[in-house]
Amino acid sequence: MRQKVYVEGSRPDIQVPFAEVHLAGDNPPVRLYDTSGPGSDPEVGLPRMRQAWIDERGPGERVTQMHYARKGIITPEMEYAAIREGLDPEIVREEIATGRAILPVNVNHPESEPMLIGTRFLVKINANIGTSAVSDSIAAEVEKLQWAVKWGADTVMDLSTGKHIHETREHIVRNSPVPIGTVPLYQALEKVNGDPVKLTWEVFRDTVIEQAEQGVDYMTVHAGVRLAYVPLAANRVTGIVSRGGSIMAAWCLAHHTESFLYTHFEELCEIFARYDIAFSLGDGLRPGSIADANDEAQFAELRTLGELTEIAWRHDVQVMIEGPGHVPMHKIKENVDLQQELCHQAPFYTLGPLTTDIAPAYDHITSAIGAAMIGWFGTAMLCYVTPKEHLGLPNRDDVKAGVIAYKIAAHAADLAKGHPTAQAWDDALSKARFEFRWEDQFNLSLDPETAREYHDETLPAEPAKTAHFCSMCGPKFCSMRISQDLKEYAAKGMAEKSAEFVESGGKVYLPVVG
Amino acid sequence: MRQKVYVEGSRPDIQVPFAEVHLAGDNPPVRLYDTSGPGSDPEVGLPRMRQAWIDERGPGERVTQMHYARKGIITPEMEYAAIREGLDPEIVREEIATGRAILPVNVNHPESEPMLIGTRFLVKINANIGTSAVSDSIAAEVEKLQWAVKWGADTVMDLSTGKHIHETREHIVRNSPVPIGTVPLYQALEKVNGDPVKLTWEVFRDTVIEQAEQGVDYMTVHAGVRLAYVPLAANRVTGIVSRGGSIMAAWCLAHHTESFLYTHFEELCEIFARYDIAFSLGDGLRPGSIADANDEAQFAELRTLGELTEIAWRHDVQVMIEGPGHVPMHKIKENVDLQQELCHQAPFYTLGPLTTDIAPAYDHITSAIGAAMIGWFGTAMLCYVTPKEHLGLPNRDDVKAGVIAYKIAAHAADLAKGHPTAQAWDDALSKARFEFRWEDQFNLSLDPETAREYHDETLPAEPAKTAHFCSMCGPKFCSMRISQDLKEYAAKGMAEKSAEFVESGGKVYLPVVG
Repeated sequence: MRQKVYVEGSRPDIQVPFAEVHLAGDNPPVRLYDTSGPGSDPEVGLPRMRQAWIDERGPGERVTQMHYARKGIITPEMEYAAIREGLDPEIVREEIATGRAILPVNVNHPESEPMLIGTRFLVKINANIGTSAVSDSIAAEVEKLQWAVKWGADTVMDLSTGKHIHETREHIVRNSPVPIGTVPLYQALEKVNGDPVKLTWEVFRDTVIEQAEQGVDYMTVHAGVRLAYVPLAANRVTGIVSRGGSIMAAWCLAHHTESFLYTHFEELCEIFARYDIAFSLGDGLRPGSIADANDEAQFAELRTLGELTEIAWRHDVQVMIEGPGHVPMHKIKENVDLQQELCHQAPFYTLGPLTTDIAPAYDHITSAIGAAMIGWFGTAMLCYVTPKEHLGLPNRDDVKAGVIAYKIAAHAADLAKGHPTAQAWDDALSKARFEFRWEDQFNLSLDPETAREYHDETLPAEPAKTAHFCSMCGPKFCSMRISQDLKEYAAKGMAEKSAEFVESGGKVYLPVVG
Repeated sequence: MRQKVYVEGSRPDIQVPFAEVHLAGDNPPVRLYDTSGPGSDPEVGLPRMRQAWIDERGPGERVTQMHYARKGIITPEMEYAAIREGLDPEIVREEIATGRAILPVNVNHPESEPMLIGTRFLVKINANIGTSAVSDSIAAEVEKLQWAVKWGADTVMDLSTGKHIHETREHIVRNSPVPIGTVPLYQALEKVNGDPVKLTWEVFRDTVIEQAEQGVDYMTVHAGVRLAYVPLAANRVTGIVSRGGSIMAAWCLAHHTESFLYTHFEELCEIFARYDIAFSLGDGLRPGSIADANDEAQFAELRTLGELTEIAWRHDVQVMIEGPGHVPMHKIKENVDLQQELCHQAPFYTLGPLTTDIAPAYDHITSAIGAAMIGWFGTAMLCYVTPKEHLGLPNRDDVKAGVIAYKIAAHAADLAKGHPTAQAWDDALSKARFEFRWEDQFNLSLDPETAREYHDETLPAEPAKTAHFCSMCGPKFCSMRISQDLKEYAAKGMAEKSAEFVESGGKVYLPVVG
């Protein structure tokens, strides 16, 4: 059985949720990190859990977690997030102070449950949702948000580009227990009727402030697409595939002048500091194909993102760095190593990467391979890819498929990088499997519903769930059962017991049912 | 459009199939490796393509490809396989002569299309099918065979354990254009009513000969599970999870004597040499959970498999080595390195590995991550895992899901290890994507049907397939289109054309339709 439980922090209003899985027999319960939130009424939104913490600190020019961390203050948000990770809050404070981790929390999003993005913590995943010109139902997007969060999305990006962008975002933020990210450039472009040439710093700035007021926790800003880098992408197989990147490239070329995002970056930092918005410095020149991976266009931009990171940090503004994209396996590690070096260990946040281009309709898998590896190598958050990538807009099923694939990648990475709490989950599930505790196995699964459904397809009867075999080998042939018998046998001492084993041998393989 | 084409070898009866994808405009066609076979009538079977080649060589004690390769002879099978890989037949001969690759072809399976399993060649994938005590339709298994082969399985293992094992296998071999593997121990066990204690060398030997006569191309033999290693598995979280391994462990313990597979291994080699059956030396002690990966039980067996490899090679019998299983990412490379060292570079053939235990119902994904990595590190063939692994028997959809996930893993590995022909496929697809050649993109996909279906879900109309945008961004907002315009712009020379770009800028973002 799965149950939501809360762990209290140093004050009664710090109540940290976990999903507690109760197991059969004397097996201790397993507590899993929980992103599911308190549940909400889409029309009303969520309780403003953090409001008191925000109010206590009072308003200021710098209300950022980085500001407090550098002053040696452990905020309730830091403590909350530390309890989720099973780590000392002082470690959390230090990681935020140095910029190696971020805790994205806009002061106007008090509904969010604090979480950490950093190499030292559990690998997180992001799910993208949002309306578009051809699909613009607000209700559908709020449902996707809740669905993504139910299956484990740690943050959600609202990439809406159609009508009702402001209203859609308002509904998403008010209903989200996880940090919300956006790309303000998309809405700014709508304000100039879709013509990038007409974009101005003022339109962009006002859009950022509008979204900041609503409570957006982190914003993608493609300030690294500088005029001089645009020609570097001209001879690629797939050019510039980032929407933000191509918009800024078009603007730079049309005006033949430096990007306004780059030249106004300090002003942006001042705005971000007033709300505690984190930068997600966009990789507008990321590769869109295997052929274009790790090229000069990509790495030139990365160097600029490193410079911008230092500027943001001078304003106590939190920063993460976006990464690719499409990268064959042997070129993945170079991405992380270079990002960590050039960006002074700011957290890395990558889209996959996809490890091959040949499987549209399965890019949640082509990219889960790359995501698991890049997570192991040090990437802090993985942006999911759904089966519809390159083909269409994800529906509910696609969102779930993407989230589950990325929870797998993130956990595989946690295991490989040796996160102290990761392997206990695998061990509990494998022990349940070995002992034929089917219900425990289902309840410990990433997706209990589907695991149960697949089991029941071949052996639907209720007794089969307590049977000491499964449909793969059938009752006479189960290696797990043979192996359990061997274990008991070995425990008794081998040599003297072999005669006894022969006598009882027949019994071991008798069918339990049928 | 996809079309089957044939390339003729040095003699007219060597006709090697490829799937040729015709592309729009002046883009050259792309030829893809093709496993689909000629198609068969399940009641009649396939043409005996290789019969003349086998007859020409005449019968003998050693009719193995390794035997001929070591004598410097390039057989028609070697030439056929070399053409498939786009490599010089002399390279193929040499890899087989040294044991670094195998070409599994029983003289009694003339229907099979020769293929290679070796580090230097394209990474191959295997699909498991087979009846069981709870599901025993022969027609369903033949359909699964054809389905697996349609989607790209390079070999198929028939793991039937229920009734009608002999008859099921006969139908499978006669209808299979790919090599068929089996685990003879399963049928031998049925002959002694499922009691491993009653197994004998004679029962096993006769079963091997029965299957050899039918044309099985490679057989899994768990000869490395020695008496002394069994206690090493006793304290694992999941004991012995290999069926063959647990059967042999039970036999060894009951009789308290060395495994008859180990003590009779030379006789087995003599039988295998007469039919040119390849050994797939089973990893009976492979780990069944993250907790048990890379332990002493596993590596003790691996050392023995290395010894057995040398014995088989003395008989000119081809050998590959089976590997795990469940392994976290940071322990994967050690498996390949140790296997290559201990087994003298014989090809490695692994089951996944799964990189975490927490996702039953998604183990095609947990294991595709490990499979891609282990393929990159040098594994020659990847045994698929379906979504039903640990839960039930795979149906048609599961077989396809497993095959596609493993084709992705294998191709990602081919890219990463730098196979000379691999990246052209990705480049052709990405170029089609960038140029909005939707039909070309679908036809170049691993699964054209699903790619087309997903596209049509959001934009079903036929005009959308020629539109220069897709549903993700909508017409006004397409980064690919902006990027194409930039490319043309850059080609014209940047500085002098910026004014012209501003003028034409508006047009670039006008919708193409709607």
